[in-house]
Amino acid sequence: MKALKENERLDDLQRNGLYIIQRPDAFRFGTDSVLLAHHSGIKNGDRVCDLGCGTGVLSLLLSAARKNAVFDAVEILPDMADMARRSVEYNRLEDRIRVHAMDMRAAPERLGRGGHTLVLCNPPYYSVSSGRIAQNEGRSSARHEVHIALADIARIASALLQHHGRFSLVIPAFRSAEATWALQAAGIEPKYARLVIARPDRIPKLLLIRGIKGANPGIHWAAPLITHEENGEYSKEMQEIYGEGIRGT
Amino acid sequence: MKALKENERLDDLQRNGLYIIQRPDAFRFGTDSVLLAHHSGIKNGDRVCDLGCGTGVLSLLLSAARKNAVFDAVEILPDMADMARRSVEYNRLEDRIRVHAMDMRAAPERLGRGGHTLVLCNPPYYSVSSGRIAQNEGRSSARHEVHIALADIARIASALLQHHGRFSLVIPAFRSAEATWALQAAGIEPKYARLVIARPDRIPKLLLIRGIKGANPGIHWAAPLITHEENGEYSKEMQEIYGEGIRGT
Repeated sequence: MKALKENERLDDLQRNGLYIIQRPDAFRFGTDSVLLAHHSGIKNGDRVCDLGCGTGVLSLLLSAARKNAVFDAVEILPDMADMARRSVEYNRLEDRIRVHAMDMRAAPERLGRGGHTLVLCNPPYYSVSSGRIAQNEGRSSARHEVHIALADIARIASALLQHHGRFSLVIPAFRSAEATWALQAAGIEPKYARLVIARPDRIPKLLLIRGIKGANPGIHWAAPLITHEENGEYSKEMQEIYGEGIRGT
Repeated sequence: MKALKENERLDDLQRNGLYIIQRPDAFRFGTDSVLLAHHSGIKNGDRVCDLGCGTGVLSLLLSAARKNAVFDAVEILPDMADMARRSVEYNRLEDRIRVHAMDMRAAPERLGRGGHTLVLCNPPYYSVSSGRIAQNEGRSSARHEVHIALADIARIASALLQHHGRFSLVIPAFRSAEATWALQAAGIEPKYARLVIARPDRIPKLLLIRGIKGANPGIHWAAPLITHEENGEYSKEMQEIYGEGIRGT
């Protein structure tokens, strides 16, 4: 493997012996990525596309969950895509995870229309607080560069997906109406939703949502994911999500 | 007041000395109506329209919450509208609540466009289980008659509302995506949402949602409404909702 670059660090993903290259000062995945991976709905044999893959954390985590799934990880920022690619090489997953340094708008043309069964997206533009795009010198330009509307992302996902393919994303709860509209406008019917709440009496911060291209209306709301106990520690379910690996549900 | 008709009963609403005429075998309001009244967002001076008012429970309850609000209660079923009208007369609220026996599709034309500040709807077609339209001989025809799509209801609400008027409704959670789409297509931006859950680890059954005509995107998710304790009794909040009257929030 190539040497780590300046300010980079090799972090243990604590799952199947996987490691990931991150830059603590700039590019680090957050809880939202772990939750999205856990709720991705990945199945055996899925052909997955991660739109805006950042460090590649989703593909890395999910490669361990489904041994015969393959991944296209798309990232517009060349430095970030390079980090993701070196992580893939370090884990010797080049045959299963392909990293593409490109604007996701080009993905349907470059990767093929209707060729994927699952598209994932942790939209980057709101993730400043989660550390995915944290404060660093290049932040302003990076944010400008990666800004893309949910409606555009949904259209790209729909173009990539085969009929009845799935699109899973995690968004701030306050954007739920916008996301619902975006999915439906792109022909993807929201079928699963789960609010993420620190404690039952708190305001939900995140929404996990999954749609199916060409499906009939009707959404299954799962019980909310309560992340913390009264004493401030992670809830049992969060401990399981972090500790037991990624389920395919 | 006119005498009660066959099978009818006069029930104490246990709020400000109000009573309501119901038919236990056919027309009874449910918890969903009480929750919608509580979350209606009614303000002083509101000109309210309740689309599909049934027995008129929403207008009756909210007349007590805001003394200077006035109500148009629209109901397509003549028998139901008659019951609602007699309840209004019994409570001597004729000067504040007008009951209209008509198809809600005619409401913008008959009641005026842009003349209301708050529209409420507890859509009737799913309320069989809640008893609002329960099993009775006329059920099949009644259900056929009252069936109207959420998209149509939202368009009617938008026509009735002035700019920045509010539309509050309660729906089964599985219809959330459909409702979101319907509101947005009608120019009403969802601004407030709250899931109703029996207990924190259960699947949410109902969604309370409120939109504002012409508002910017961005939805506030309140902490879920937990309706029951572990022992099966109503939660403290539900006891307050039933016991302390309807807040205007």
